[in-house]
Amino acid sequence: MSILIKGGMVVTQNLDRKIMDADIYIDENFITEINRNISVEADHVIDARNRIVMPGLINTHTHVGMSMFRGAVEDMQLDRFLEKTFKLDAQRTEEDIYYSSLLSMAEMIRTGTTSFLDLYYDEHIVARAVEKSGMRGFLSWVTLDREFTTQKGEPLKNAEEFISSHRGKERVVPSIGFQGVYVCSDETLLKGKEIAERYGVIEHMHLSETRKEVYDYLKKKNKRPVEHLKEINFLSNNLVAAHTVWLTVREIDYLGQSGVSVSHNPVSNMKLGTGGAAPVPEMMKRNVNVTLGTDSSVTNNNLDMFDVMKTAGLMHKNDRWDASVLPSQSILDFATINAAKALKVSSLLGSIEEGKLADIIILDPFPSGIPLKKENIVANIVYALKGLNVTHTIVDGRILMSSGVIRSFDVGEVLSFMEKI
Amino acid sequence: MSILIKGGMVVTQNLDRKIMDADIYIDENFITEINRNISVEADHVIDARNRIVMPGLINTHTHVGMSMFRGAVEDMQLDRFLEKTFKLDAQRTEEDIYYSSLLSMAEMIRTGTTSFLDLYYDEHIVARAVEKSGMRGFLSWVTLDREFTTQKGEPLKNAEEFISSHRGKERVVPSIGFQGVYVCSDETLLKGKEIAERYGVIEHMHLSETRKEVYDYLKKKNKRPVEHLKEINFLSNNLVAAHTVWLTVREIDYLGQSGVSVSHNPVSNMKLGTGGAAPVPEMMKRNVNVTLGTDSSVTNNNLDMFDVMKTAGLMHKNDRWDASVLPSQSILDFATINAAKALKVSSLLGSIEEGKLADIIILDPFPSGIPLKKENIVANIVYALKGLNVTHTIVDGRILMSSGVIRSFDVGEVLSFMEKI
Repeated sequence: MSILIKGGMVVTQNLDRKIMDADIYIDENFITEINRNISVEADHVIDARNRIVMPGLINTHTHVGMSMFRGAVEDMQLDRFLEKTFKLDAQRTEEDIYYSSLLSMAEMIRTGTTSFLDLYYDEHIVARAVEKSGMRGFLSWVTLDREFTTQKGEPLKNAEEFISSHRGKERVVPSIGFQGVYVCSDETLLKGKEIAERYGVIEHMHLSETRKEVYDYLKKKNKRPVEHLKEINFLSNNLVAAHTVWLTVREIDYLGQSGVSVSHNPVSNMKLGTGGAAPVPEMMKRNVNVTLGTDSSVTNNNLDMFDVMKTAGLMHKNDRWDASVLPSQSILDFATINAAKALKVSSLLGSIEEGKLADIIILDPFPSGIPLKKENIVANIVYALKGLNVTHTIVDGRILMSSGVIRSFDVGEVLSFMEKI
Repeated sequence: MSILIKGGMVVTQNLDRKIMDADIYIDENFITEINRNISVEADHVIDARNRIVMPGLINTHTHVGMSMFRGAVEDMQLDRFLEKTFKLDAQRTEEDIYYSSLLSMAEMIRTGTTSFLDLYYDEHIVARAVEKSGMRGFLSWVTLDREFTTQKGEPLKNAEEFISSHRGKERVVPSIGFQGVYVCSDETLLKGKEIAERYGVIEHMHLSETRKEVYDYLKKKNKRPVEHLKEINFLSNNLVAAHTVWLTVREIDYLGQSGVSVSHNPVSNMKLGTGGAAPVPEMMKRNVNVTLGTDSSVTNNNLDMFDVMKTAGLMHKNDRWDASVLPSQSILDFATINAAKALKVSSLLGSIEEGKLADIIILDPFPSGIPLKKENIVANIVYALKGLNVTHTIVDGRILMSSGVIRSFDVGEVLSFMEKI
């Protein structure tokens, strides 16, 4: 199949961050030409005049299987929140996880996210939803010490089995996850790391999200979590660490030196009142690869990466009393090329360039992105526009959504399920 | 004209904050019946099954004439920001203001805002755009001391002339504005107040937005702005004070005791890095009527009140390290009934009740508001949904937008203008 996108303003996110008026030709899965006035035949021609054409967004931390609990746990302090969430979680059926995952993917496709990194157990169910939806799912089977888990069987074994049975699939990329140092012994962490290395997959974990978590650890181990992870040689450029709010500058240095990628989740952090602000400006100075995540619909309460981009900018400008902190170009980088780097797919995703996979979104800037010029397009994307401005979502050269309507699967089935719960 | 809205889930915002499955009958400008299964004929029947029906949102602080500068002044510190903004402002033509205002109104209509409170000079031009768009415009002609103004003529006289020539119009409600204590002498403030009382209109001003503004004033006058305004008897329940970030508890008490309404502008405050957070929880405890504003597209960068509601919740939960601060019901109140009270129209606007004016919006909850239940509908509105979920906007019993398309005026003309700038 071939697609020709004609007449858009293209935010390439290439090395020069070039913004250009150009057509894009997609042949099968790949972008094969970017040029003015391409005049070849194509199976699908999309009129993108007065539209923004940009790389699909990449959400680097979420739990798609939880969407059915959106709005169920609100306005309460963290201990009560966790108690209620765990209770909901324990009652979950396989069908619940499957339809929640499909709902999350419908939402992401509708709002311009083309790839996501998930952290959960039962990722084989999520994988089925990924295959159905047409998205790219980077799925980390979460592990933790046996004494803490509600998983059937041994988490590390489950993770390994998931990875070995899902390797080499087209849009499902398995990996290993860790719930966090508070429920993962060194043995679990290092065995998990060994599995990741053996299979050539990434690692994904919650890290230093709350102040309590860090200080409890400090009391128990006399070390801060990142200090300890460095000491046991756990940190590497294979790791995506989510949240990382409560860090010292020394810990940031360790992350940067080890090549760790961070998934910053400003909406979730603010909504849970975890306090402070992840030290993103310092991370950037210290070579930490910063990316963005929504977290689950329970704490966000949506999976719209445009909300996350805007909130990232607002949070840090406010936190530092300085409007020049975190320019919008950096924020857009977090959600595209930096994320591709974190997932080890930067040669294939994260920008619109010839030879890359065709994961592209098209936005109608009306009304909040008007006027639209090359000079304000990045600020408009980060601060003015929303996921619902996305009119077309293309993944792997396939149109999953056009004119606001999801084409890749029957959303009606998901809605019927959600009406009954 | 009559409209029948059938089958929606209605968030009434009435005294009991009732959420009900009901039909709504609109006869001319008014809501005349709210009931299950109304079966009368109507000129327009809107199918609202699986939709949210709620009062139109009210934006209590904006500058609609500035939208053409969206994204033009980004990522810079406040002094450079102001310098550049004033420069842009000085070059403005009447046509610029008119089309910027229409663009702002297109954006507000599209995203579910039905009334707004504006602060600007040349409000007679904004008034023309209001009449064309079909919205309700509460327009405050800004005054300041003559030595600081770029207005032609004497600001107080201009304001009075605007008020006297625009009284009694249907959807244009004039009022008087003040730029701020830093450019308004006591004489200007009290003369303005006298004009407001004479014509029975409200007052609207910037107040204690930045730390610098408060401390400069303190140095000069040996009083904080609100303390001084209390002393000269300027504070009253006629006043809507925008921003009010830098207040002492004593000043909050003064505002509460005088019946002042506050327009909280969290997105703008965060984006400008003005620092801190307006003490909204304390305002609520001290009987200050809190409402929400977008501020202009230059500092936000959109006029989507859903962004403002969400950011309000995030900001204060984060600021207090406490997720239980500012429940979503309070935030929805800010944007509806509290705002109507601030504008002195609470008997007519701000909720869906029989006998009130028909300013109503309808939302399709797909995708981010699914699942939708009475228990999560308010959280979904505040945290999950966006202005682009709004499918219908009704003002004064007239359908200004349906199925996402603005019907009340020709948006094409505005877009053509914006393409040329």
